[in-house]
Amino acid sequence: MSKTDIIKGRIASLREAMAAEGLDALIVPQVDPHGSEYVADRWQARKYFSGFTGSAGPLVLTKDSAWVIVDSRYWLQAADQLSGTGIGVVESGKPDAPSLEELLARSLQPGAKVGIDGLLISQKDYESLSAYLEGCGLSLVLTDDIPDKVWEGRSGLPGGEIFVHELKYAGEAAQAKLDAVRSMIVKIGVDSAFIGDLAQIAWLLNIRSTDVACNPVVIAYLYVSQSMAVLFVEESKLTDEVRAYLAYCGVTTAPYAVVDKFLVNLPEGEKVAVDFGSIAARLVYALGRGRAVASSLPINEAKAVRNQIQIEGTRRAMERDGAALVKGFMEIESRLRSGQSTTEIDVDAILTHHRSAQDLYFDLSFETIAGYGAHGAIVHYSATPETNIELRPEGLLLVDSGASYLDGTTDITRTIALGDPTDDMRRDYTAVLKGNVALARAVFPAGTRGAQLDVLARMPMWTLGANYLHGTGHGVGHFLNVHEGPQSIRMQENPQPLLAGMVTSDEPGIYRAGRYGIRIENLLLARHAFDDPDYGEFLSFETLTLYPFDRSLINRSMLDDGEKAWIDGYHAEVYRRLRPLLTEAEASWLEAKCAPLD
Amino acid sequence: MSKTDIIKGRIASLREAMAAEGLDALIVPQVDPHGSEYVADRWQARKYFSGFTGSAGPLVLTKDSAWVIVDSRYWLQAADQLSGTGIGVVESGKPDAPSLEELLARSLQPGAKVGIDGLLISQKDYESLSAYLEGCGLSLVLTDDIPDKVWEGRSGLPGGEIFVHELKYAGEAAQAKLDAVRSMIVKIGVDSAFIGDLAQIAWLLNIRSTDVACNPVVIAYLYVSQSMAVLFVEESKLTDEVRAYLAYCGVTTAPYAVVDKFLVNLPEGEKVAVDFGSIAARLVYALGRGRAVASSLPINEAKAVRNQIQIEGTRRAMERDGAALVKGFMEIESRLRSGQSTTEIDVDAILTHHRSAQDLYFDLSFETIAGYGAHGAIVHYSATPETNIELRPEGLLLVDSGASYLDGTTDITRTIALGDPTDDMRRDYTAVLKGNVALARAVFPAGTRGAQLDVLARMPMWTLGANYLHGTGHGVGHFLNVHEGPQSIRMQENPQPLLAGMVTSDEPGIYRAGRYGIRIENLLLARHAFDDPDYGEFLSFETLTLYPFDRSLINRSMLDDGEKAWIDGYHAEVYRRLRPLLTEAEASWLEAKCAPLD
Repeated sequence: MSKTDIIKGRIASLREAMAAEGLDALIVPQVDPHGSEYVADRWQARKYFSGFTGSAGPLVLTKDSAWVIVDSRYWLQAADQLSGTGIGVVESGKPDAPSLEELLARSLQPGAKVGIDGLLISQKDYESLSAYLEGCGLSLVLTDDIPDKVWEGRSGLPGGEIFVHELKYAGEAAQAKLDAVRSMIVKIGVDSAFIGDLAQIAWLLNIRSTDVACNPVVIAYLYVSQSMAVLFVEESKLTDEVRAYLAYCGVTTAPYAVVDKFLVNLPEGEKVAVDFGSIAARLVYALGRGRAVASSLPINEAKAVRNQIQIEGTRRAMERDGAALVKGFMEIESRLRSGQSTTEIDVDAILTHHRSAQDLYFDLSFETIAGYGAHGAIVHYSATPETNIELRPEGLLLVDSGASYLDGTTDITRTIALGDPTDDMRRDYTAVLKGNVALARAVFPAGTRGAQLDVLARMPMWTLGANYLHGTGHGVGHFLNVHEGPQSIRMQENPQPLLAGMVTSDEPGIYRAGRYGIRIENLLLARHAFDDPDYGEFLSFETLTLYPFDRSLINRSMLDDGEKAWIDGYHAEVYRRLRPLLTEAEASWLEAKCAPLD
Repeated sequence: MSKTDIIKGRIASLREAMAAEGLDALIVPQVDPHGSEYVADRWQARKYFSGFTGSAGPLVLTKDSAWVIVDSRYWLQAADQLSGTGIGVVESGKPDAPSLEELLARSLQPGAKVGIDGLLISQKDYESLSAYLEGCGLSLVLTDDIPDKVWEGRSGLPGGEIFVHELKYAGEAAQAKLDAVRSMIVKIGVDSAFIGDLAQIAWLLNIRSTDVACNPVVIAYLYVSQSMAVLFVEESKLTDEVRAYLAYCGVTTAPYAVVDKFLVNLPEGEKVAVDFGSIAARLVYALGRGRAVASSLPINEAKAVRNQIQIEGTRRAMERDGAALVKGFMEIESRLRSGQSTTEIDVDAILTHHRSAQDLYFDLSFETIAGYGAHGAIVHYSATPETNIELRPEGLLLVDSGASYLDGTTDITRTIALGDPTDDMRRDYTAVLKGNVALARAVFPAGTRGAQLDVLARMPMWTLGANYLHGTGHGVGHFLNVHEGPQSIRMQENPQPLLAGMVTSDEPGIYRAGRYGIRIENLLLARHAFDDPDYGEFLSFETLTLYPFDRSLINRSMLDDGEKAWIDGYHAEVYRRLRPLLTEAEASWLEAKCAPLD
């Protein structure tokens, strides 16, 4: 049977299951019951039924049509993967593209019922979608797991063993963090909190697992009151050691599947804080609107502010990561020089090989992006056997990669020239570098928000008429998810100030479609700079990432003295910090890359 | 009778009038029935009853206490002016300072009634204050004009004659603007609009008056439907010429005082768009909540986007204003050199003298700020006979001034050294200049908001540990108010993008309390820069203001090549544009000020 016939068959059986429930349409979201960005196989229903493999975008099924709604990163890929399946592509972001709700409204007759798994939509999204559809005479029904009935070979719940993230890396005991949550509970005047966000749970309890690739979270829910804490988790994931540890922390465990019943049976009148933005609508329903208090405790903010041990760990992880990159890029350079065939996938393999040889290495922190030539201009490109191309001694290679170490998470992008770069490449690279450096050099009063600083990274390319439509910076977890809030540095307003201890990326880019892409990314630690008697505390950034820029791509005439001095200082620091981890040959290779600009 | 006894007497009589209405507290706001920032004498009740002359801050009266709530600009002045009167100062902005609602809540017993003139509070503020007070068991009562009963010698309604702002200056006929409002009305699905904002009315109808010092607005209301337009205005303000003009525009007039009755008698079921942020609560009450539709039509945005004739007019006004400043500062310099006594008030008088001699001069656009030495650090300082000091051949003089010309409005700040500046002064001045220039040189994609660009003006001083707590830029009206929205450039988020044709100030500053203040302000016109095939339209700024910076205060070593080139280019343009309006002597004086930096 052909691939498209397989998909057609799956869609047909899903449509039957939908009809059996009396539904006129079904939304199959790309998300898990915890609102995660990265999703374990068990919840890849959209991928199984449609064949589209992108990391975002729901499948929308009616009695006679099907669509996948995808953002600009995936327009081409979705069109390609869905071709011949009968599933249409809604190119979200194009002026005429309908939103999910508009698509439903224009495809259905009044009175129609739209189903969505009540575990796969947040309470907040449920409320707004439901209100919109009601306005159109449609109704939104929270269903059970309909795809499950017709999903052959579906993965079970992720079964990764839980392990303890040791205090020497985490820097703060779970008991102390639970106490802090209990104080937050008192402060907002509720009785307890129910948490579904996986990174929050892993951070609060200092536990990790392998449930989700590249994201060492544990699939679980957590309930915290003044007298108890209950972790809802598959029993099979608990070793004796972890059971003992959790008991010591005062945390009871209960099966993952009983969370619904637990919530239903909480005492009447108990006020439970839940974050409507991340908690599944079905769980708020179980809790009952009388008990559920919409309130996001500031756990994300507490998690984002690194303690001193996490900061020191991250610095050490950056050194090992930088050393691995030196070894990796040196190997790539040498292969290219000797004419040995090297592809984008090889770049990934080589860097992963050297990273995994480092102390405290755990996993990649996300799928490596190694985009050569025109592939570099595809912002979320990830090489597959079908797209993989061989590097040649010309053009630009963009590599965005990172790893989870027990003591910290890395995320770095470097763009390198494989031959003599053109003037355009050097102009664009230098503009991106100027933006990166301008943000890294910022000094700002406490209370400043990321949206205020974003322009520093963009102005050098705005003057060239270029821009990048992604954010400049995302928060980075500590041996957790590579994308974590609450802070960000982007054009859009976000009221969260940048606090001392937060780690945020700095990754401006220029993308020349069909030619090349350039991005330069370092991680920045916000930290206390000084106190002014009149204007209070000021913060500045420490650049955590340690790997040189490509000097052959820098147009020195575009740099002012301050920028030159900053780059030379950074390169000297990179060499000083990585040198102890390198062989003589590696050190002399790095020394040349770190030489002062003329 | 002493000044404080006079105030005590006035407070006592106001308290009696309050009690006669059965009220336990009375709020006397510093505002007019149109929500204006600058207020005609008739509505200066706060000033009359308290003796405090600042431009903002309400008087709050209870049976046994009285306070004025003032922001940091006025902490010292209020303490001084209110001393001995029994009226307390609430220093708004200090951590412990109560807000208006907190002050009422903690001063009154449950059940107490708080009064406020229903014409002197916007519907939006009324709703939120009312809800807050209800939560504390208090009630907010919309009253008539209670101060009027005990206000001796109160001014009547401003009686300035209306005159037509000619099409050759306004660039767009009133009929066309009214048609645009009618299209907005259709677009949002209402029947009509009721407008209380004075700048909107003056702009829409191309009429002006002298009702409010420095703000050539007309005290009026405007009702617009598809079939009619009614201007509510004192009959005495209408000349025959203006009557004929309004008739030609299809605008009926009615007495200012009948606006209430007109609103009450509108047809049932008519939907009237009103801006709850600016319209008085009593008028929304008159309209009835069934008819009032909270909706701000985009009139402010239309008003803020200059047409080509307004832009050309503003350029010409800037030339005349710059020439007047050359003459004025030359005279000040010469007086100081010859040892002739010159005070801050003299500076104002000299500049006003030269401005008023210019073609098309109408009025100052705001009260001149001429702050010498430590006075320069008081952000909204305005010299009075009591504070006025004499200039000496040392230190810094900060002058923030501007004028309304028929073809445009100016607003410029320059800081000059009267003797040899210190290194600190030069460092601070150059940091402020770098910030000013960085914003002026910005290039940005269409859709960019002011809050995104604000940091450009601040970063040079943030790196020195300094900041300024005012905004970087306010919108400026065209022969109208010197402060007009909707755009701004400030740290706080404002969703309004900067559009081509908008004029916004660029005025970073550094204030060293007790020593000196430095501010440099130019007006910037946002305009189309270029279209990029991938990233769309980009905008940049044209610096409209024409007057040199003080070269003696520039520390060249702090400037990079791009900044130097920009300053030299600006100075060359200033000289080129002002030269035709100057005598030989003035031109050679200016030429030296505009010489290239080394």
